[in-house]
Amino acid sequence: MSDPFFQPVSGFVLPRYAGVPTFMRLPLVTPDHPRFSEVEIGLVGAPWDAGTTNRPGPRHGPRQMRDASTMIRAEHPVSGTRPFERANCADVGDIGPNPASMPDTLERFTSFYKTLKSQGIRPLTIGGDHLCSLPILRGIAADEPLGMIHFDSHTDLYHSYFGGEMYTHGTPFRRAVEEGLLDPKRVIQIGIRGSMYGREDLDFAKSVGIRIVRIEEFFARGVADVMAEAVEVVGDRPCYVSYDIDFVDPAFAPGTGTPEVGGPTSFQALEVCRHLAGLDIRGADLVEVSPPFDPSGATAYLGANILFELLCAMV
Amino acid sequence: MSDPFFQPVSGFVLPRYAGVPTFMRLPLVTPDHPRFSEVEIGLVGAPWDAGTTNRPGPRHGPRQMRDASTMIRAEHPVSGTRPFERANCADVGDIGPNPASMPDTLERFTSFYKTLKSQGIRPLTIGGDHLCSLPILRGIAADEPLGMIHFDSHTDLYHSYFGGEMYTHGTPFRRAVEEGLLDPKRVIQIGIRGSMYGREDLDFAKSVGIRIVRIEEFFARGVADVMAEAVEVVGDRPCYVSYDIDFVDPAFAPGTGTPEVGGPTSFQALEVCRHLAGLDIRGADLVEVSPPFDPSGATAYLGANILFELLCAMV
Amino acid sequence: MSDPFFQPVSGFVLPRYAGVPTFMRLPLVTPDHPRFSEVEIGLVGAPWDAGTTNRPGPRHGPRQMRDASTMIRAEHPVSGTRPFERANCADVGDIGPNPASMPDTLERFTSFYKTLKSQGIRPLTIGGDHLCSLPILRGIAADEPLGMIHFDSHTDLYHSYFGGEMYTHGTPFRRAVEEGLLDPKRVIQIGIRGSMYGREDLDFAKSVGIRIVRIEEFFARGVADVMAEAVEVVGDRPCYVSYDIDFVDPAFAPGTGTPEVGGPTSFQALEVCRHLAGLDIRGADLVEVSPPFDPSGATAYLGANILFELLCAMV
Amino acid sequence: MSDPFFQPVSGFVLPRYAGVPTFMRLPLVTPDHPRFSEVEIGLVGAPWDAGTTNRPGPRHGPRQMRDASTMIRAEHPVSGTRPFERANCADVGDIGPNPASMPDTLERFTSFYKTLKSQGIRPLTIGGDHLCSLPILRGIAADEPLGMIHFDSHTDLYHSYFGGEMYTHGTPFRRAVEEGLLDPKRVIQIGIRGSMYGREDLDFAKSVGIRIVRIEEFFARGVADVMAEAVEVVGDRPCYVSYDIDFVDPAFAPGTGTPEVGGPTSFQALEVCRHLAGLDIRGADLVEVSPPFDPSGATAYLGANILFELLCAMV
Amino acid sequence: MSDPFFQPVSGFVLPRYAGVPTFMRLPLVTPDHPRFSEVEIGLVGAPWDAGTTNRPGPRHGPRQMRDASTMIRAEHPVSGTRPFERANCADVGDIGPNPASMPDTLERFTSFYKTLKSQGIRPLTIGGDHLCSLPILRGIAADEPLGMIHFDSHTDLYHSYFGGEMYTHGTPFRRAVEEGLLDPKRVIQIGIRGSMYGREDLDFAKSVGIRIVRIEEFFARGVADVMAEAVEVVGDRPCYVSYDIDFVDPAFAPGTGTPEVGGPTSFQALEVCRHLAGLDIRGADLVEVSPPFDPSGATAYLGANILFELLCAMV
Amino acid sequence: MSDPFFQPVSGFVLPRYAGVPTFMRLPLVTPDHPRFSEVEIGLVGAPWDAGTTNRPGPRHGPRQMRDASTMIRAEHPVSGTRPFERANCADVGDIGPNPASMPDTLERFTSFYKTLKSQGIRPLTIGGDHLCSLPILRGIAADEPLGMIHFDSHTDLYHSYFGGEMYTHGTPFRRAVEEGLLDPKRVIQIGIRGSMYGREDLDFAKSVGIRIVRIEEFFARGVADVMAEAVEVVGDRPCYVSYDIDFVDPAFAPGTGTPEVGGPTSFQALEVCRHLAGLDIRGADLVEVSPPFDPSGATAYLGANILFELLCAMV
Repeated sequence: MSDPFFQPVSGFVLPRYAGVPTFMRLPLVTPDHPRFSEVEIGLVGAPWDAGTTNRPGPRHGPRQMRDASTMIRAEHPVSGTRPFERANCADVGDIGPNPASMPDTLERFTSFYKTLKSQGIRPLTIGGDHLCSLPILRGIAADEPLGMIHFDSHTDLYHSYFGGEMYTHGTPFRRAVEEGLLDPKRVIQIGIRGSMYGREDLDFAKSVGIRIVRIEEFFARGVADVMAEAVEVVGDRPCYVSYDIDFVDPAFAPGTGTPEVGGPTSFQALEVCRHLAGLDIRGADLVEVSPPFDPSGATAYLGANILFELLCAMV
Repeated sequence: MSDPFFQPVSGFVLPRYAGVPTFMRLPLVTPDHPRFSEVEIGLVGAPWDAGTTNRPGPRHGPRQMRDASTMIRAEHPVSGTRPFERANCADVGDIGPNPASMPDTLERFTSFYKTLKSQGIRPLTIGGDHLCSLPILRGIAADEPLGMIHFDSHTDLYHSYFGGEMYTHGTPFRRAVEEGLLDPKRVIQIGIRGSMYGREDLDFAKSVGIRIVRIEEFFARGVADVMAEAVEVVGDRPCYVSYDIDFVDPAFAPGTGTPEVGGPTSFQALEVCRHLAGLDIRGADLVEVSPPFDPSGATAYLGANILFELLCAMV
Repeated sequence: MSDPFFQPVSGFVLPRYAGVPTFMRLPLVTPDHPRFSEVEIGLVGAPWDAGTTNRPGPRHGPRQMRDASTMIRAEHPVSGTRPFERANCADVGDIGPNPASMPDTLERFTSFYKTLKSQGIRPLTIGGDHLCSLPILRGIAADEPLGMIHFDSHTDLYHSYFGGEMYTHGTPFRRAVEEGLLDPKRVIQIGIRGSMYGREDLDFAKSVGIRIVRIEEFFARGVADVMAEAVEVVGDRPCYVSYDIDFVDPAFAPGTGTPEVGGPTSFQALEVCRHLAGLDIRGADLVEVSPPFDPSGATAYLGANILFELLCAMV
Repeated sequence: MSDPFFQPVSGFVLPRYAGVPTFMRLPLVTPDHPRFSEVEIGLVGAPWDAGTTNRPGPRHGPRQMRDASTMIRAEHPVSGTRPFERANCADVGDIGPNPASMPDTLERFTSFYKTLKSQGIRPLTIGGDHLCSLPILRGIAADEPLGMIHFDSHTDLYHSYFGGEMYTHGTPFRRAVEEGLLDPKRVIQIGIRGSMYGREDLDFAKSVGIRIVRIEEFFARGVADVMAEAVEVVGDRPCYVSYDIDFVDPAFAPGTGTPEVGGPTSFQALEVCRHLAGLDIRGADLVEVSPPFDPSGATAYLGANILFELLCAMV
Repeated sequence: MSDPFFQPVSGFVLPRYAGVPTFMRLPLVTPDHPRFSEVEIGLVGAPWDAGTTNRPGPRHGPRQMRDASTMIRAEHPVSGTRPFERANCADVGDIGPNPASMPDTLERFTSFYKTLKSQGIRPLTIGGDHLCSLPILRGIAADEPLGMIHFDSHTDLYHSYFGGEMYTHGTPFRRAVEEGLLDPKRVIQIGIRGSMYGREDLDFAKSVGIRIVRIEEFFARGVADVMAEAVEVVGDRPCYVSYDIDFVDPAFAPGTGTPEVGGPTSFQALEVCRHLAGLDIRGADLVEVSPPFDPSGATAYLGANILFELLCAMV
Repeated sequence: MSDPFFQPVSGFVLPRYAGVPTFMRLPLVTPDHPRFSEVEIGLVGAPWDAGTTNRPGPRHGPRQMRDASTMIRAEHPVSGTRPFERANCADVGDIGPNPASMPDTLERFTSFYKTLKSQGIRPLTIGGDHLCSLPILRGIAADEPLGMIHFDSHTDLYHSYFGGEMYTHGTPFRRAVEEGLLDPKRVIQIGIRGSMYGREDLDFAKSVGIRIVRIEEFFARGVADVMAEAVEVVGDRPCYVSYDIDFVDPAFAPGTGTPEVGGPTSFQALEVCRHLAGLDIRGADLVEVSPPFDPSGATAYLGANILFELLCAMV
């Protein structure tokens, strides 16, 4: 039974451009709010992009995504799921980053996610760059490695950049595997493409058992077949879903820092999420939405719909 | 035999960026023009968006569409149809709206379309938001309900908004059915998608017999199969074609007020129109092109090509 | 003595791009909030632009202004005023408009401002188009006509548009004078310019005693001299300040619907406000900021600084 | 007495965004129109930019200027001039260029202006790049050299480019002096600035008696003083006014191909024109408005107001 | 064995946004460079768009493409080809055009390509508009007609424009066939679409034996089947590959002057190139990338990837 | 006597949009170039913005500034200075940053500037954010504190951010004073404005003797008077010039991360530099140009002209 407090504002009542924007027009329930502990799924803003090796901007993602997500309505058009009636969902605010210190921010983020976990709140995070996924996993997977379904055009499995830097948006999952936060044999990466530095990341994936579905295989087999395999890879044990917006072709999602052409359509971008229902999802994220490179704001609209799909899969 | 007066200016003679832009570079033949009564298909500008519940802008649609439509040439590339040689086509100008009064504007529009009908001119309207379709139907369908093929991501079948408002761009076809302007059993809506408020519109559609083809069904069956059904639904009796640009995926048509991701490609956007030839089309419209949200102008280019497809289907 | 609750978040603590944006990062204290009655100055969002006769968009003003106003810091650089320590300031939310009904929205707005007045909250409104000023005045000036200092490139004193429409963004102050909400002898309009329809508005101004300072006079005399006169015109009795962003030259504020070239600089845009301190200001507004016509967002930054100047004048 | 046929459409009747756009909403009276010979001042579109040595785009100027000029109203705000009541003004259409042949286009343009002259129509031309001024002068100054007031950041007095090219937008007035179309002793150039290739153009100016007012002198002396000299330079004999939009600072007019920073404001841009009244102006132009480099369209708005100022000076 | 001198800078060492941009971060080896004669494949900038009949801008293509191409890495993701290790690749600079003279520029270009040919350098050209292909062919195909695989939405086979102009971007391949630079029986054009002037170009193609694959056939048969035919058409004799970016749908490549909707995706845009490996490619080009019409820069990113595909096919 | 090698390419020979862009079209002479030691003034790219506390982007500044600076010609329009004939000027390339490590990058930068100093090359740096000025000063002022003329809207004299971070773009000159790199009594800051956190930075300035000229004083006294004082403050001993583009009003320079409205015009932006001639300038920088926030690119054009002014002051 749904709690009226945790319901979004309807566009039939208040036009979508009106009101202070929160994620999906949900109530803002930050950790100091009296009803914080009642939240079941928390939409978290992670305005941090210090891991970016190329064009910056995802730090502005949460704010633009709040704006765009006011377009989301209450019911999934295919499954009929009404997520806000099935779980207490709330915007739990932004994690305050320290833009001048990577170690401090990693620590702040990890701590925030530990708090969520201790309260039984599953996080749906809006980045931020892909390095954000590392402190999320440190916060929620400390006691047990998770499986992961990872949508992306890049593996983010590199060892280091620029002469030994271990923490960039190209390395989070290498670190997560090394730290035992992910169970590589239950990790699948989908959509990988683009010209390559070399084979280092692929060799690592192979060596630890990560399954990579390149875009050619994705297009050849189709969404249903690939996602059936993905569901099998993670199995019925706890898992994480990480969604880099550059998984999608830049025609549909230009607002990102390292676009790779030749990707899926927006329909496929939604469709892949519809196969996640039923998994034991402990958290999910959507990262790398970069407003400064998105003149029309279209990327955030797509992102808002992906968030809604992820949310429907989590409830 | 084609009348030289009703021919567009060729891009071989005058570059496309030159000249006062009219729709498809056709002559401007407003109601006070001596040859008005000779027009057979009138391209009408409807610069009005007072029915918009979200982001405004379609009032600027006709002017931008005139500009973009100067790219259109004389012959259909597949069917070989040369529409300007088969019917007297003209830009019949814009209907003057009253931006401060919805009732007055509805009346002005209805009156304009009644005039067109009385002169035997079939209208191809460039909106404006989707509320424009209501006074068009009031003008041309007063004596006999029409069938309709409706391309859109939304049903526009809601009862009311904001506490009882009956006239918005989300309600025109509910009104049209209620007023007997459409024969709901000969109405088909194609491309419906996006998160939903609830089931009110779908329930209404079902109750009156409107056929809805959701986007998933559209993709699964393909254009040819869906359009064969559409043609069957409207049959050989008089019908209307209403085309909301948000039918198309926003990657191809970002310039619209309420984009819904996960839609058809531009190729499919054209392809669906190619199955309309042979129907008894009494009028058609393309609505919701919103220049302020289209930084590159790409939406208007697509719109101009859709207009040309609709025109080829009408001659 | 300042109340910690009513203080904005500092950019030294949380980066300006982080957090749910409220006006100037103040607490959000809507009418249902327990501390609503403690608010002394309420920043109000008025997302409504149905009075627009030309390019739409100010309905999106409050949201963009909230975002841009996160750049505002705590202290005025010249006067040293720290407004948040001198009055309880809060974002009191947006007034819910009815985009499909002008009468209903005028009523909703009037009612909201009556509530503010009854609670002793002085409003600083962020529009919306200039028609918003009418229901504001109806709400706060019902019992006693106010003087007004009005910055604008247009007089907004027309009788009607489009064949008799009395309510557009070109008529609010004609209505306000007729309704006895403004004392025309204590009204001054500054910055008027642009090609003219005719002399109707000027004749009306003259007939009721409104003082108009055209832009040529403004530039010739300078800010200090003109503002000294403005202060004298309104005197020490209650007054209102209405600021149309198109007062400023469009190079500094492109994001507006009816720009008029040849206006003041951004420095002058701020400077005029600095002469308002000490007046008995019962309310103020900043209107006509239109995000869709502002590719770089610069207009909202200027607007945020004007808001801060107005606020410092009000405390 | 004003002829109703030659009056623009009012914004009180038809909103400014509606209708097929002509210059200032005047009637379109091309040479084949029955009332062509009654036109006294013809607004001419010159969509040609083959003389551009740097960033292209002014070929799109006339179309965008028609759109923006729908903002112009009927009366000058300072002088009270109502130009449309004092002369028969009309949009006489675009001259058809040949984008692939400079000689052919020069010939087409010259011929068009000769026609205008033979009909007693004074041209107010909207470019196009600055090379357009040469065929204009060839058309209207063939029998008697004209004086010229020239607003620009560049002298356009170079001998040649790229190894001997005599016709570019950097050479028109060198040619015009050589061809006896301009009387260099009655030519004044105002606003010159920007880093320089060398002194070749300045030496030429000096050698033939052209007066150059650099921007530093312009700012130091002020508009009134400089323009008094300008009026004296051209005297009471026939003259031409050529206005390159890059005269204005790019903050006010970004949409141009070779912007030079450090220029006049939009107010000064208008003000200089107000001193032209009373001169014997045989033609005028506004050139180098380049829509592709003007994301917000602000340049065209300024341009439309400059056109109106020029028109008021011509009637 | 790869020469260290001819290797690109890695993004692991220097971030992609740093450094003076050359094509793919290769060394700049202009004709006066001591190692020029060692170059095997030369990436050539052709900043010239005088053949454009509509919207200009491709003159800015090479500079933007150099910037975007810094995103390219060293290895092809599917074939594993590492082109920079298989041939000495270099940025050989831009050919200096004469924007004011078409004949002079045609001559300059032809001469440059003759030089490349005489040095044994195969050119991969970055335009510039499609007229550039003509002097390229004059430079490299003078002694033996080439076959050609041509990706485009237009045939570019017209006889002339604007009353007899033989050199525009709509005529290069008509000229090339007439001049014996192409063997029409070994020419295939893929992706043709858009409304048509008439049948003149198609009739010419038919008369000389050029094979045209319209977009409908392309979509129906699929990339592999069409490309198998293409490979067969050109055979194992020397050929050229010409790639107009408007081959791709404008949602993926908006930055072009004459976009035609209804085209291939970015994935297909890459995929077609992967079938070219093994052909005897004597040169290739990518033309019509027009930065002024590409607000997000996405077209150049796609273009850079197409270039990389072409390069991998050439080594 | 000028060395032909160190001369820029002329726009009369090669159009400005052609060629690989280097700063002002000068030769690229990186440290490994044989003529490096002959360089007298080195234009340095500093693509690093890790000190940014708000909107990122200056890392892209050097590349865009190279592009825009191709507009610069050879001679100063007022002084007649031809800088490239008076000193060997060259683009010495970008310093490679480590975007993932602030300490490493500070070290790399310091080392680069030490090299320049040891070679007798005076640096004119193009940032990058304002933190870049710190390692520059560490490199060139290690042996003797410099005076400084600093144009900016912010003092950049804060102690720390975000709970103790000492290195951000708001702290460089605090550090420089503490480290003895600047002689505070010979430092003047001009243009300071915007709402303030508090008085901490001003108190520090006062305590060490830094002179601050607020924008109000700047406008009241005028450029000549303020700059006379500035010249007096630094005296005839060695000094540095640091120019933050946000010194200029955002209407003239929107592309920056923390714009402050109410600033100088572009003319004043150039004019202040013209008073620097004759000073003993050991280095200069232009920082905070942020391309992602500059839709029209106008900021870079202004920046290029400021660079040229600084260069003319340095020779």
